[in-house]
Amino acid sequence: MFDSRGMVLGERGDWSASTPLQSVEFGCPWRVRAVNPHLDHVRAGAVAWMEAFGLVDDTGLNADRYTRWLLAESAAWWHPDAPADRLQLAADYVGWVFTPFDDVFDGPVGRDLQATGKICRALVDVVDAPPAPVAADAPARVRAFADLWRRSCQGRSAQWVQRAAVHWREYFAAQVAEIGNRVHGRISTLRQLVVIKCAYPIFDMAEVVHDFEVPPVVWHSPLLAEIRDCLAEIITATNDLVSADKEAQADGGNNLLLIAENHDGLTRQQAFARLERMVHERFERVLALERQISDWDVLLTGEQRHDTRRYLQCLHDIVAGDNRWERVSGRYR
Amino acid sequence: MFDSRGMVLGERGDWSASTPLQSVEFGCPWRVRAVNPHLDHVRAGAVAWMEAFGLVDDTGLNADRYTRWLLAESAAWWHPDAPADRLQLAADYVGWVFTPFDDVFDGPVGRDLQATGKICRALVDVVDAPPAPVAADAPARVRAFADLWRRSCQGRSAQWVQRAAVHWREYFAAQVAEIGNRVHGRISTLRQLVVIKCAYPIFDMAEVVHDFEVPPVVWHSPLLAEIRDCLAEIITATNDLVSADKEAQADGGNNLLLIAENHDGLTRQQAFARLERMVHERFERVLALERQISDWDVLLTGEQRHDTRRYLQCLHDIVAGDNRWERVSGRYR
Repeated sequence: MFDSRGMVLGERGDWSASTPLQSVEFGCPWRVRAVNPHLDHVRAGAVAWMEAFGLVDDTGLNADRYTRWLLAESAAWWHPDAPADRLQLAADYVGWVFTPFDDVFDGPVGRDLQATGKICRALVDVVDAPPAPVAADAPARVRAFADLWRRSCQGRSAQWVQRAAVHWREYFAAQVAEIGNRVHGRISTLRQLVVIKCAYPIFDMAEVVHDFEVPPVVWHSPLLAEIRDCLAEIITATNDLVSADKEAQADGGNNLLLIAENHDGLTRQQAFARLERMVHERFERVLALERQISDWDVLLTGEQRHDTRRYLQCLHDIVAGDNRWERVSGRYR
Repeated sequence: MFDSRGMVLGERGDWSASTPLQSVEFGCPWRVRAVNPHLDHVRAGAVAWMEAFGLVDDTGLNADRYTRWLLAESAAWWHPDAPADRLQLAADYVGWVFTPFDDVFDGPVGRDLQATGKICRALVDVVDAPPAPVAADAPARVRAFADLWRRSCQGRSAQWVQRAAVHWREYFAAQVAEIGNRVHGRISTLRQLVVIKCAYPIFDMAEVVHDFEVPPVVWHSPLLAEIRDCLAEIITATNDLVSADKEAQADGGNNLLLIAENHDGLTRQQAFARLERMVHERFERVLALERQISDWDVLLTGEQRHDTRRYLQCLHDIVAGDNRWERVSGRYR
């Protein structure tokens, strides 16, 4: 229904079981508007930040991986018009999420619920209010996250800090739950699969990167909550598609495509079609819901109305950037 | 599948269009365990509290309504073994939600988005952190809510305050959204219908009433989030069932049964069956998810394990109490 140039297409279904996963395209109603001009600058900055916090053992390998995985590009596509210092924060976060944090659970820790719980509880403590001091001998990934969280909160309202903290707690709790499912041989629920993708903290980051906030009565509305849920589910389906072959080696229960195949007995082509339908249903719902955003206008100042539209634009940019990134990142090759 | 005595039944489908709504029974796997012995005491206390805050114009009418609607009973069924002072807080909240707050939107304010927005923004400000002082000349319903919120936060952790504040903001934002839907002649989404029922703040109150908290890594897990969502949807379906005839007079777009009939063209019996299927699917999902709660045991102390089970018991008590209340309260006659 949606191709990557924002046009409506008919169902294609011209995939086969041998189609490389990253060449499968569910489409997106929005396109990447621009590449942030600070791309090269923040790539170098993020690699240096990871080294400074001791997040990497092999600096050459890390710089190569950060580059090949197009991690700076993802930040530069999500936030095409962010200033350099704020884009840097986004690029640092992406490095933190994808390399030292996510991958720790691919090793032995990913089969050890107690070890996972210990890491995640230390991270949950970071977003406590008032902020808990981080011990100097805390693990590098905890000290680095505390740096990211401190920089994110600068200039933000208490309400933003509260709601963003809830999203991070949910993300860390989902890491524990994923390992629990793996240890007990369970299939993850859709909600589990969605929360683990870190989309909600990434959405919150848009307000940090552009230094604005959606008015509380709008941000907390069921309308925006449903839009965020739909977009997070789209990101989940797209990521589970391209990562399926990689994840099949670790654990088939935490991936929508593999669950469709291994648990529900679909062929690969049928599984592609299921994920495509899921993505298109969410896009259609979002496009319909967004038309209601003007309901709030009578309650808002001109600036607040502008910020509300800007937030939707940020969400579109993130989904369009993610859609491109999933298909070209070296992480899934 | 579930009757009110906690037994599994076959589908009945023996309802007709003339069946009184409060006699329709979808069932519940849990029963009301006991009636809190402080029932009469908190009923009198809640009526006095409402009068002291100037929430009522006609004290006789209010006391009569509070009694006939079985508002103290709902608190006493939800929290069968809570101490008197904490049950009082629950009974006061029920009075606040059902009489001065909810019903204001049945009058002219319920067609005025700006007036609704003004009330809801004043209430959102109350849960700000640090707490904003409430002006002495603020409306009674705002001063009364500030009293409830202050009492709720006593002894609670900063994390509890943060997550409960998010739920209240979502509830107030949903009030604005409901009026927006009404003004613009729209059908509410399921999420809108669920958030407006106030179930999430009522779930949070269980920890206040019993003076305990679920450990963050468990409370924020996708497992408990999904259980809460299912139970909130069950409460929504049950409430929309019994309130349908009353709500048909105001606005048919904010009620699941009326949407099934008026928007989707179902007969009343078909609409009953749709809501029943929805309720049973959620109960089955909750019963399956709850069996996973022991996954977290290896991360928890003995007391934390106990608190986690106690929280599930509290949720069961609330749903069982609500199931009874919807069918006997005088509010829907």
